[in-house]
Amino acid sequence: MSPSDLTVATSIASRFRAVREQTAALCTGLSAEDMMVQSMPDASPTKWHLAHTTWFFERFVLSRNKTFKAIHPEWHELFNSYYQSVGPMHARPMRGVLSRPSLDDVKAWRSHVDEALAAWLERGADAETLALVELGMNHEQQHQELLLTDIQHALSCNELLPAYDAHIASVPGEPVPLRFVACEGGTVEVGYEGEGFAFDNESPRHGYLLRPYMLANRLVSNSEYLMFIQDGGYHDPLLWLSDGWATVQGQGWSRPFYWQEDLASAFTLGGVRELDPSAPVTHLSYFEADAFARWAGARLPTEQEWEHAAASVPVQGNLLDGWPRLPHAARGAGLLQMFGDAWEWTASPYVSYPGFKTLPGALGEYNGKFMSGQWVLRGGSCATPVSHIRCSYRNFFPPHARWQFSGTRLARDA
Amino acid sequence: MSPSDLTVATSIASRFRAVREQTAALCTGLSAEDMMVQSMPDASPTKWHLAHTTWFFERFVLSRNKTFKAIHPEWHELFNSYYQSVGPMHARPMRGVLSRPSLDDVKAWRSHVDEALAAWLERGADAETLALVELGMNHEQQHQELLLTDIQHALSCNELLPAYDAHIASVPGEPVPLRFVACEGGTVEVGYEGEGFAFDNESPRHGYLLRPYMLANRLVSNSEYLMFIQDGGYHDPLLWLSDGWATVQGQGWSRPFYWQEDLASAFTLGGVRELDPSAPVTHLSYFEADAFARWAGARLPTEQEWEHAAASVPVQGNLLDGWPRLPHAARGAGLLQMFGDAWEWTASPYVSYPGFKTLPGALGEYNGKFMSGQWVLRGGSCATPVSHIRCSYRNFFPPHARWQFSGTRLARDA
Amino acid sequence: MSPSDLTVATSIASRFRAVREQTAALCTGLSAEDMMVQSMPDASPTKWHLAHTTWFFERFVLSRNKTFKAIHPEWHELFNSYYQSVGPMHARPMRGVLSRPSLDDVKAWRSHVDEALAAWLERGADAETLALVELGMNHEQQHQELLLTDIQHALSCNELLPAYDAHIASVPGEPVPLRFVACEGGTVEVGYEGEGFAFDNESPRHGYLLRPYMLANRLVSNSEYLMFIQDGGYHDPLLWLSDGWATVQGQGWSRPFYWQEDLASAFTLGGVRELDPSAPVTHLSYFEADAFARWAGARLPTEQEWEHAAASVPVQGNLLDGWPRLPHAARGAGLLQMFGDAWEWTASPYVSYPGFKTLPGALGEYNGKFMSGQWVLRGGSCATPVSHIRCSYRNFFPPHARWQFSGTRLARDA
Amino acid sequence: MSPSDLTVATSIASRFRAVREQTAALCTGLSAEDMMVQSMPDASPTKWHLAHTTWFFERFVLSRNKTFKAIHPEWHELFNSYYQSVGPMHARPMRGVLSRPSLDDVKAWRSHVDEALAAWLERGADAETLALVELGMNHEQQHQELLLTDIQHALSCNELLPAYDAHIASVPGEPVPLRFVACEGGTVEVGYEGEGFAFDNESPRHGYLLRPYMLANRLVSNSEYLMFIQDGGYHDPLLWLSDGWATVQGQGWSRPFYWQEDLASAFTLGGVRELDPSAPVTHLSYFEADAFARWAGARLPTEQEWEHAAASVPVQGNLLDGWPRLPHAARGAGLLQMFGDAWEWTASPYVSYPGFKTLPGALGEYNGKFMSGQWVLRGGSCATPVSHIRCSYRNFFPPHARWQFSGTRLARDA
Repeated sequence: MSPSDLTVATSIASRFRAVREQTAALCTGLSAEDMMVQSMPDASPTKWHLAHTTWFFERFVLSRNKTFKAIHPEWHELFNSYYQSVGPMHARPMRGVLSRPSLDDVKAWRSHVDEALAAWLERGADAETLALVELGMNHEQQHQELLLTDIQHALSCNELLPAYDAHIASVPGEPVPLRFVACEGGTVEVGYEGEGFAFDNESPRHGYLLRPYMLANRLVSNSEYLMFIQDGGYHDPLLWLSDGWATVQGQGWSRPFYWQEDLASAFTLGGVRELDPSAPVTHLSYFEADAFARWAGARLPTEQEWEHAAASVPVQGNLLDGWPRLPHAARGAGLLQMFGDAWEWTASPYVSYPGFKTLPGALGEYNGKFMSGQWVLRGGSCATPVSHIRCSYRNFFPPHARWQFSGTRLARDA
Repeated sequence: MSPSDLTVATSIASRFRAVREQTAALCTGLSAEDMMVQSMPDASPTKWHLAHTTWFFERFVLSRNKTFKAIHPEWHELFNSYYQSVGPMHARPMRGVLSRPSLDDVKAWRSHVDEALAAWLERGADAETLALVELGMNHEQQHQELLLTDIQHALSCNELLPAYDAHIASVPGEPVPLRFVACEGGTVEVGYEGEGFAFDNESPRHGYLLRPYMLANRLVSNSEYLMFIQDGGYHDPLLWLSDGWATVQGQGWSRPFYWQEDLASAFTLGGVRELDPSAPVTHLSYFEADAFARWAGARLPTEQEWEHAAASVPVQGNLLDGWPRLPHAARGAGLLQMFGDAWEWTASPYVSYPGFKTLPGALGEYNGKFMSGQWVLRGGSCATPVSHIRCSYRNFFPPHARWQFSGTRLARDA
Repeated sequence: MSPSDLTVATSIASRFRAVREQTAALCTGLSAEDMMVQSMPDASPTKWHLAHTTWFFERFVLSRNKTFKAIHPEWHELFNSYYQSVGPMHARPMRGVLSRPSLDDVKAWRSHVDEALAAWLERGADAETLALVELGMNHEQQHQELLLTDIQHALSCNELLPAYDAHIASVPGEPVPLRFVACEGGTVEVGYEGEGFAFDNESPRHGYLLRPYMLANRLVSNSEYLMFIQDGGYHDPLLWLSDGWATVQGQGWSRPFYWQEDLASAFTLGGVRELDPSAPVTHLSYFEADAFARWAGARLPTEQEWEHAAASVPVQGNLLDGWPRLPHAARGAGLLQMFGDAWEWTASPYVSYPGFKTLPGALGEYNGKFMSGQWVLRGGSCATPVSHIRCSYRNFFPPHARWQFSGTRLARDA
Repeated sequence: MSPSDLTVATSIASRFRAVREQTAALCTGLSAEDMMVQSMPDASPTKWHLAHTTWFFERFVLSRNKTFKAIHPEWHELFNSYYQSVGPMHARPMRGVLSRPSLDDVKAWRSHVDEALAAWLERGADAETLALVELGMNHEQQHQELLLTDIQHALSCNELLPAYDAHIASVPGEPVPLRFVACEGGTVEVGYEGEGFAFDNESPRHGYLLRPYMLANRLVSNSEYLMFIQDGGYHDPLLWLSDGWATVQGQGWSRPFYWQEDLASAFTLGGVRELDPSAPVTHLSYFEADAFARWAGARLPTEQEWEHAAASVPVQGNLLDGWPRLPHAARGAGLLQMFGDAWEWTASPYVSYPGFKTLPGALGEYNGKFMSGQWVLRGGSCATPVSHIRCSYRNFFPPHARWQFSGTRLARDA
């Protein structure tokens, strides 16, 4: 191993430690009991996130190291999420029953795995292992965001409406007028290509023919969404997709997920807070974002339109860097809030790019098998780690999902 | 009205009568009781198809004529399918309870509407009316296909397994070897543009950038699909989309919808028939088509790839022209079975084309509101009227739907 | 065979013909289409009732006759209701798909079976056969009532609200004041014992210790039930059993099943009719009868209390004798409406009597296996054949069932 | 207050403390995480049991004391179970989300309530208050049993199958031959009458006419139940009630709830243990107990038969006295295991006794509103506090419930 290799190795080891510590840090203020709650099948207990991300490193990385010995092989079934090729898995809706292993035992396991893997990285590991560690870190960062959205959901189901952090920062916003920015069309390149890490679903980079389009300069705000509600948006079937209208009626939807009945406050990671009119509306489903756009005489951008516009914008914004902050109003000029604050539903169903290849082996199950019935979201949110997001990043959720920090940006034909 | 206008009018009047008569003709051999059956919420009774298509002409066309008086306005609620903007509608899963109006009353209503509309057309109607009549005829042709697929489903639920027509033609096939045809990429035009009729969802015609690709010369055959089954295709989760695997397990799927347990025969419009090994496999879900393609080391074509290739193929094949025939094996060379025999699932979710505009008014509900959770199928089937299909035609169904004549064609990256 | 045996045989043959003709007569005015409708899993199409009762005679009676040959053995699966011991059965919720055999074919089958059985009876059959014929006739009479309640339900699901018979008799009533009749307690005998026919669940006759009690002189009337509604009965959880309250909330119940929103009219076999305030309220669930009684400061009678009181009342009232009439107000003095008008929910769950023995063989499945989760109703309704009901007769339905002619009579502790 | 009153007061205060301490003691060995788990809607987390029983004392007893001030009134909604008359309640299936209040906070609340109530009792409280304290203690004892059955269920859902107490006593049994004891009939008295505490549903004591009957001398054993399985009991529809057979097929039942696939071991409070052939079979549903009895040529006893026989048997057996023990085989002669080991399903639906009066006020909701769709069980189990059970005690569960210590004893007509 040459000195420069060592630097790389050290660097990945320290990044590995940092990612793992960030996850642990997000649990500050949560009790072992809080970390047990599974409030719906889509969400997982905090402790499960801690354990599953550890399992991921042990199962897919450390298992490559002949000298490593798993201390709890019997836990693998509990913390396998959905990898059919590596064995059976505990039923997803039943993750909240796993009182054993205890939080302390999971933490000890985390330490054990962290030490083993960091040591290996510091000693120097092969390129394939390093790639898997990159994947594992990115995987863990995804779970950092889910950890936050899942605990918010868990706490929201308790009539006491306890805060994740009662003092979480809520930056008072000033309204930036909504205007549409003209974007040129033509054959553009989308998808990832480069040296750094990206998920398989971002590749290959390929040409895509765009017509000229207009993109709103910022996310839709709470006050704009309130106008939609007050104009009867939730009562007019003509604004909705057919499946959306069935959901509105079946579920009795009348406002964004965490808004309170007064339409003036919402449950947040900081407990119930007054709605900031100029902050972006969040916790919308695709159906709501789409209906709002139709009401506004606009439409949602396609993911290619979004990516093309975002390519010229620096990757910065209200993203997760240490401790989360609530979504807040934009400031400044140009295309604002392209990164951070809230994921943006696009008009694009989540399917593969032309020439898409899944990862080999079990990790081929990571992304590809979910390419049915979901829509692409772009740009990250206040709960997305700042080092995790990029212009080509594709998030995806079913059209009725509302517990993420999901908002919307309008687009129009030019 | 000039003489040439009169010719147009006469011509549309005679086409109108022909379409209406084709629908009635498909009911030959069905009793009033057969025409009552609704065997699942997705399917409708034959009588309901007769009445709904009549309602469509009365509600959207004849209502424009001040001198026309509806003889059964109280039936409108019963036969409105899903048009929220024109009033309430009878619950879809309860269409099978409508013993009143009787078949005879529905037929009399059809005649009344047919006479009134044909007379108007012969007298000469305005261009907008003519356009709506075109839409109504195409709408009726869609229901001709559904009438056939729905009655097949209805009869399949009866342990006696009665035939729609015991003597329906089943053309013995000869195997054409499967091979892949190379197709050039580049910026191609897709979507409809022209004088004739097309649905709103086929527009606007627009450029699309394609990579070179390979398209199978024919549909996948029963014998090829049998190999997939015998190779354990229904038992290997790695071949399936996540939602598909959940469906396979939840519904206990182990073979195409109408195949019998012996894997050697299937229920058809002609009753139980031996499977023709070289005939195309039909009644597949998207999930099955996709899993088969993965097993075969191939993939499904996108709708743009399909359309680009189909543009150079004449619109002919085993389509509905008078009386239906069963799907059968291809003959000849080149791209076979692009039209007819079986709809082809594509890799494209059903969404709007760039610049898409819905029809004005209530008819805006025709297509656009279903652009969520469905996949595009192309090419028509043996139950698709021959004058109804075209290269740009987009059919769509949810990924679990199996009661249509839906099959699959393989594609590959070049 | 002696002359007196012949008289018995002739008599049973003529009764058999009369019962079969009564069933056919109830179909007057119904089309083949009406007779196809299954509007919910609990209800069956009229044609199915015609066929199932025929199957019952063929399968359980004629099959004993070596010279009889079933002309449609392949129909047995279609029309077996729930007899696991005699083979597979068509799925209950799918009875509405059976367009084949046609109504005409079913009628021809009925005739064939009728002729064969009547001829046998006239020739003279063994005692066991005669007993099975008695059971078959009583079985058919049960289906006569179900035929009426099922077709009413079927027609109620059509927005046209067609009448079974628009001219059905509705006898205007005069109010008889509600008063409680004192009944003595002590050890009484309940259950059937005698020469005539009774179902297995009415036996054995046995002693039962009753405390003195009070029984209302007539059924609860529409006007009395309206007071319960107007007093907020459907909004006070304390009036309801826990399962009842869950049903009220889950189903949105706010009035008896067929009452219209105006609380002044109801859908009946005669179409929508004004409510007669003094006629008995019908189409109540057990939950509603029980809640009403609690609201009224009373309770439901037990089946033993009911039977003890009914033993001294002649078996006459508004029962089915030829053509049905709607429930109407009582007239006269004493215990009124004990028989006819509406079945009376009792406070007794449907369980076996001490010493109960099921019938031998497949017919043991007739009653006993339903002794779980149902409640006993007594007294018959306007749709119960007059020769079918008796003091010891036990009908039973689940507590949420509302499509029968089910009403209620109050009781109190003495 | 006289000295003897003081003795009573002291005595009830010390009993109150003892009951509360017994509940706390049952939590030994459980972590805060274990105590969070709700594994199904019917079961509650251990912490919820601790809190709900405390709420019961605070809401129904201490609230009568003007000087008492609730320290956490906002918790009342969380821990109200089903008392509609005292306000809203947290959704039952979501009890597992209540990470707040924490276990420590709940314990502190328990102490606060215990001190306040014990002090009041020691000072002397009025008779009505004392009666409510008795009710509260009995209520808490019911929850002691549920705490054990619910935590067993919770642990059973974890693939690690952790034990509640790995060292819990399992007394090796010796087989006592099954024989039937003849019991005389006649008019007997059933129901509670006396000075001590009993639930409202045990009253009033009343006469009941019994026919002579035979009662098995002990509970059905594991080895006997195994014979039923091996004889195909779970595959013969004729042995089952109709609802039972639907449950067996729908749920795929093939053995008692906690039996392992090997039919030789079962999950217990002590983890997976070998089945003791002569120990009573437990964790049966009513449907299974009933089917077993039919297979055995016997029947279940009615609750009156059971009570009449039990009246002459001392209230002792394998009951909860400090720390639970597993069910084990009987020893000795006469009627064995009438109390303890396993609750015995009876043939009696749970309905009110003649002359039944519910408690006044909100506590009227305690028992009466559940008198629909459930069956009576008698005799207590190894998890029933020894001071809680009596001859007239009526437990009740729906017929499919299997997570209690529910077994069965055979009966026969004499």
